[in-house]
Amino acid sequence: MQQLTWLAATALLALPAAGATSETTLPGADGPTIQPDRTITFKLNAPQARAVQVEGGDGLGAGPFKMTRGADGLWTVTTPPAVPGFHYYWFMLDGVRVNDPASRTYIGYNLETSGIEVPEAGADYYAISDVPHGTVREQWYFSKLTGHWRHAMVYTPPGYDQNLKTRYPVLYLQHGSGEDETGWTRQGKANFILDNQIAAGKTQPLIVVMDRGYATDNASVRAPLQDIATAFGAFENVVLHELIPTIDSSYRTIADREHRAMAGLSMGGMQTLFITLRHPETFAWIASLSGPIIPDMSGNRSFNDGVAETFDPQTAYAGAFAHPAEFNRKFKLFWLGVGTAEPAQFHGITQAAKALKAAGVNVVYFESAGTAHEWQTWRRDLNDLAPRLFR
Amino acid sequence: MQQLTWLAATALLALPAAGATSETTLPGADGPTIQPDRTITFKLNAPQARAVQVEGGDGLGAGPFKMTRGADGLWTVTTPPAVPGFHYYWFMLDGVRVNDPASRTYIGYNLETSGIEVPEAGADYYAISDVPHGTVREQWYFSKLTGHWRHAMVYTPPGYDQNLKTRYPVLYLQHGSGEDETGWTRQGKANFILDNQIAAGKTQPLIVVMDRGYATDNASVRAPLQDIATAFGAFENVVLHELIPTIDSSYRTIADREHRAMAGLSMGGMQTLFITLRHPETFAWIASLSGPIIPDMSGNRSFNDGVAETFDPQTAYAGAFAHPAEFNRKFKLFWLGVGTAEPAQFHGITQAAKALKAAGVNVVYFESAGTAHEWQTWRRDLNDLAPRLFR
Repeated sequence: MQQLTWLAATALLALPAAGATSETTLPGADGPTIQPDRTITFKLNAPQARAVQVEGGDGLGAGPFKMTRGADGLWTVTTPPAVPGFHYYWFMLDGVRVNDPASRTYIGYNLETSGIEVPEAGADYYAISDVPHGTVREQWYFSKLTGHWRHAMVYTPPGYDQNLKTRYPVLYLQHGSGEDETGWTRQGKANFILDNQIAAGKTQPLIVVMDRGYATDNASVRAPLQDIATAFGAFENVVLHELIPTIDSSYRTIADREHRAMAGLSMGGMQTLFITLRHPETFAWIASLSGPIIPDMSGNRSFNDGVAETFDPQTAYAGAFAHPAEFNRKFKLFWLGVGTAEPAQFHGITQAAKALKAAGVNVVYFESAGTAHEWQTWRRDLNDLAPRLFR
Repeated sequence: MQQLTWLAATALLALPAAGATSETTLPGADGPTIQPDRTITFKLNAPQARAVQVEGGDGLGAGPFKMTRGADGLWTVTTPPAVPGFHYYWFMLDGVRVNDPASRTYIGYNLETSGIEVPEAGADYYAISDVPHGTVREQWYFSKLTGHWRHAMVYTPPGYDQNLKTRYPVLYLQHGSGEDETGWTRQGKANFILDNQIAAGKTQPLIVVMDRGYATDNASVRAPLQDIATAFGAFENVVLHELIPTIDSSYRTIADREHRAMAGLSMGGMQTLFITLRHPETFAWIASLSGPIIPDMSGNRSFNDGVAETFDPQTAYAGAFAHPAEFNRKFKLFWLGVGTAEPAQFHGITQAAKALKAAGVNVVYFESAGTAHEWQTWRRDLNDLAPRLFR
């Protein structure tokens, strides 16, 4: 770095942000602009490039979007109106997937990936606002099962550091495939959603633990991943035998099943059902957000579009729902959610919710209108789910 | 995301990491490899590219390093032995600066930037190890002076949540230009350095506050930045009137000058001297890490190479050092550090330290052998500095 770079940096920051710049744009950078009709203009300066296009999450529309080169070497394109919320995106630059240098990056698709935040008119439930704020903490813990240090994010509610005799219930909240433990706060704004809910008196103050949803135990590190029991088994053991004890000894939790929930999105929803249904002694509150519904524990097929089978409450999930009355006594909440623009998940989840209700299982089913397999769905999910917990 | 992406993701993670992969490489990704002689082999898959090279921090050597295209379209280069520690890097792909898709990114140069961690033989002071760990917390606070929510990182030491009657001294620790509040923990590993120091009984348990070192107050948002007083003045006011009160009301601090230190690297060192020397009523402990030394408060020149002037303890920093005995009574520590491979900073800092010592000012001067204007210098600095604080 040059010695006076600080001056250049500070000068950049003095530029007022344009009204239509995404909040995901780096300070002072010339990022994409969002028009009032939610069309988005992307740009990349690449004078030598031969072909550039924008690709990204479903909510951006049916891309890829070919960009046009200006005389100055700036490539631009304006995409159709986007779905509100957070979308991943990237450029294909002569065949190489690169990020927008103007954007902050977020872990998605197992990569650092650019993101854009398209405001939703009237939706202020996930905005940072003038209410007491909880704290998001980084929690390191050593996992003997995997032989590695692990890193989780922990939300403690407003007042946690003042009300020193209060103990709190805990929600274990998992990200999706290709994401990591930072997703729920960085992309999902879970902390602001909960701050707002708690300030409004709608949600009980709670601790939220967001762990890294990958684990491979020492013994099976090279085992082929043939089924969910193998893929999720190591994570299940980490959660039960390492994460929960770490949290219960490090935070003022109420350490019993009645005050412990698990929820997750997509892969995290699958993990939630896999773990909670096998461990009613540990969890009493369950939520799966856009989690593919599977007929058994094999993990090799799901009740998504294209699967002709019917969800059978008697046999699904190794018979976990076979005795509805018992199930309803055991679990305080069984919550399923999906966005209406999630073709791959919608059929399986709605079918399962319907079949379970018909069989007498108390299912809370939540539908997010017009949103895809993306974060706006999961923000809405959390906003619906949180007030139902620990009541 | 595809419905079974979780399986692919989990399978990737099951691959054992190669011994010479940087810890900054994303899980499962094919990142650069570090050979035992600290040469590094970088690679980028770009079959259509015409020219690709690696650039980065000083510690990588005198680049740029031109890459060679293999028959398969994979560009590679092996760079000379690197200086140990963390280095930023990126590719120039047909003239466009892009990150390595295999790398995590870090805020540097005001951008998300790839990073590589070159191990230093025998240096375990910044490794995560089997000792009690403090917690790193995200602290949001609203700044009336700037009209924005601000985001700081706060390290609380091991035992903070158990020893509920203990109050702690506070170190305000600032990043450099182009970086942000996440730099000291993500690149610098400050939390692990302090965990290790505290476990060894060498450093007093303390709270460390790492704020975002940029601020522009509402009134001067469009004012030209002509001098340090303008550039740093808004940040000074935020620190004094908003950050410190927020920390003192949110954490169990000892809220007096004798238990409050400020330190910073590069731009953060300049800010530290600017703020602490003007506010002895607030800070008693001062450290500037590779901070350019300036003859006055104009900010337009410094005592770096090429400046013929001599540092004058009588007049420098508006006469703050003019009365050494008084200065020594007032401040518990005045610490200056620099790496020997920082040509732009070395002259000014060594000259100032020498002149101040000759004038009778108690200066602690620390030199990091062979390291540049990079994080390995600042890790060593913190490791030297921390045990000297609050004694």
